[in-house]
Amino acid sequence: VRKAAQSRLFPITILTDFGYRDHYVGVMKGVITKIAPGAHLIDLTHGLAAQQVPGGAIALVQSWRFFPKKTVFLAVVDPGVGTARRPIAIATRAGAYFVGPDNGLLWPAANAAGIKSIVELKNPRYRLPDTSDTFHGRDIFAPAAAWIARGTPVTRFGPKLDRIVQIAPWSEVSETPASLNGRVIYVDTFGNLITNLTRSSVEQFAKRRSEGRLAVQVEDAEPILLRKAYGDVAPGEPVALYGSFGTVEIAIRDGDAAALLGAAVGFEVWVGWI
Amino acid sequence: VRKAAQSRLFPITILTDFGYRDHYVGVMKGVITKIAPGAHLIDLTHGLAAQQVPGGAIALVQSWRFFPKKTVFLAVVDPGVGTARRPIAIATRAGAYFVGPDNGLLWPAANAAGIKSIVELKNPRYRLPDTSDTFHGRDIFAPAAAWIARGTPVTRFGPKLDRIVQIAPWSEVSETPASLNGRVIYVDTFGNLITNLTRSSVEQFAKRRSEGRLAVQVEDAEPILLRKAYGDVAPGEPVALYGSFGTVEIAIRDGDAAALLGAAVGFEVWVGWI
Amino acid sequence: VRKAAQSRLFPITILTDFGYRDHYVGVMKGVITKIAPGAHLIDLTHGLAAQQVPGGAIALVQSWRFFPKKTVFLAVVDPGVGTARRPIAIATRAGAYFVGPDNGLLWPAANAAGIKSIVELKNPRYRLPDTSDTFHGRDIFAPAAAWIARGTPVTRFGPKLDRIVQIAPWSEVSETPASLNGRVIYVDTFGNLITNLTRSSVEQFAKRRSEGRLAVQVEDAEPILLRKAYGDVAPGEPVALYGSFGTVEIAIRDGDAAALLGAAVGFEVWVGWI
Repeated sequence: VRKAAQSRLFPITILTDFGYRDHYVGVMKGVITKIAPGAHLIDLTHGLAAQQVPGGAIALVQSWRFFPKKTVFLAVVDPGVGTARRPIAIATRAGAYFVGPDNGLLWPAANAAGIKSIVELKNPRYRLPDTSDTFHGRDIFAPAAAWIARGTPVTRFGPKLDRIVQIAPWSEVSETPASLNGRVIYVDTFGNLITNLTRSSVEQFAKRRSEGRLAVQVEDAEPILLRKAYGDVAPGEPVALYGSFGTVEIAIRDGDAAALLGAAVGFEVWVGWI
Repeated sequence: VRKAAQSRLFPITILTDFGYRDHYVGVMKGVITKIAPGAHLIDLTHGLAAQQVPGGAIALVQSWRFFPKKTVFLAVVDPGVGTARRPIAIATRAGAYFVGPDNGLLWPAANAAGIKSIVELKNPRYRLPDTSDTFHGRDIFAPAAAWIARGTPVTRFGPKLDRIVQIAPWSEVSETPASLNGRVIYVDTFGNLITNLTRSSVEQFAKRRSEGRLAVQVEDAEPILLRKAYGDVAPGEPVALYGSFGTVEIAIRDGDAAALLGAAVGFEVWVGWI
Repeated sequence: VRKAAQSRLFPITILTDFGYRDHYVGVMKGVITKIAPGAHLIDLTHGLAAQQVPGGAIALVQSWRFFPKKTVFLAVVDPGVGTARRPIAIATRAGAYFVGPDNGLLWPAANAAGIKSIVELKNPRYRLPDTSDTFHGRDIFAPAAAWIARGTPVTRFGPKLDRIVQIAPWSEVSETPASLNGRVIYVDTFGNLITNLTRSSVEQFAKRRSEGRLAVQVEDAEPILLRKAYGDVAPGEPVALYGSFGTVEIAIRDGDAAALLGAAVGFEVWVGWI
């Protein structure tokens, strides 16, 4: 077996809502490569819904664990660019680093990774000269990520912060005697509805009472039996299952659940018995 | 002249129908990078039509020859994920490796490269722990590709298979005294209609009889003269030519042939004389 | 601080209008990787409007400065592929290299970088065998870029050229006593209108006369005050500011200016006093 190449730079994983039409992400990569030649750049995605911070936070919190320990996550969904919102970097106990705007985008993932220190990106030595007011991804965040990839301690970038903006877009879970209640928190490109109901919360609910078969209901649509895989139903049929990130998911086999059920992020979801 | 860098890892080329909105492809790259740090990852495309296996098979069979000999092709168009369809890896005589679902996606390219051995990806040592039923791209295929890139023999992954699912989406070619008959097998983003009529089959047809000028007809549209390059006709005019992958292609110069001719994959195409 | 990895290959930055659906860009990367294993490939974007050379020229001229000195820019927006238009490579005094069709695409960036030499890509040794008439990106441009990344002098590729096709899509700026007049030259994915009015030209205009507050008008829409950042207006309000590439830009905070103002590339823009 070949020994894996030992890069001396930490990999940098990039997440933005910049889309794939413009040269903006490419320019950020240019800035990084100038500071950290040969840096291993991985696109998480740039197709996030424009300026929707919660969607970016979910993509990040679901993804970071699958990357090498010392990965630098550079995330830019930044409707407040040029306002008082602070540019930050976070070092975590798990090893991952997070760089981006202080608007909640980084919080869920950084919190899960165990926040060690948060700094404001103020030191001009680690920014591009002539920082713009409209493109901090290029002028502030990309340089910081590149310097971290080279091993620069985040404390060099500016003053330590005690707290950051927190969002937790998937936290509204409640329970009644008859049902466990959550929401659709993400709709993917296949139209699958991803909820905030974790496998463990459903299994605990199911342990407390057992009155038939578990089913999942989205708003006032028909309940759908909870199964194991897409293939457990016929093509065109709806299916509920534990998705690949460990939460309840509603899908149509070979189809688009969001379109067929007219569902979107924020829709209520119940797990109960039928 | 500089000597090219000698990476100790085989490059990994990734092809999916996951699109560019979600973090799914990014997460697969995280998994690979964790196993094979510094691996050279190349996106073939992630914009394939969702769950259309033949389109993916065509992209793969047209592309593999242009990559380095020892490239690992990680291909995921997988409507049957979580069903009985097997996850496989293929080693070929040409040197290329193919990893993905056993649903025909890998067959045309692997067959062209000369199949040496096929294995089922069963060994848990080369999968992620807690394999999901909905995302084998992340849990089974990405790890296998990463281990192959490190030089792990495919025979370690599981039992050898004698046969795999075969599809040949471009095979329906027939000949009458007056014409050579095939189909549109791919429509690209410019609206060009790519057919399954190879240059050599047309040249052999043309050698057997010669009654004027060669022309190409799509269903009941007007025949179009076979020429050399897009530039051989005026802007807005239709042109038929041998496309860059060696088969007859119908285009509109600076326009969209699929839209203008109302044509799609599966449409019949004739080469004949006018 | 870790020392950045010293790759022996120049990075290659790729810009096309091929989109993200087909395997065409991936195949170009395969060709490059075969010639220059381990080459650092960066996508500038592949989402350029199909066959619109000026948009590509703008993306390139705005981007090249942000990349490492010795970057190879491989740019393909090539409506004239297969016609008499020449395939070229350019070496510049700033260190950057440009490879692509001679249709004006490379001119603004190469000119800004200081053209040192231009060659026609004729030498078959640095092309793929069996060059097609429809895909020079794969057969001519990708190999040339890969050889340059390895340090091959551009003069090996073919005869020197004295001149290349020039376009300057942002050059129409004029001044009246009351206003500075330009155009929208690029509309980005957020709907921001990027103009050809540079910060320095506006500041010189403002110095010559000062009659109130500077405002920007697009065609016959309402004038919009020139400010510092998106955050200087309320969400949903229009704002004019110096964009991140140093020219006047019109945006809607958290909105789409192109849609709301019905504006597009080519629209007239005035800076004046209100």
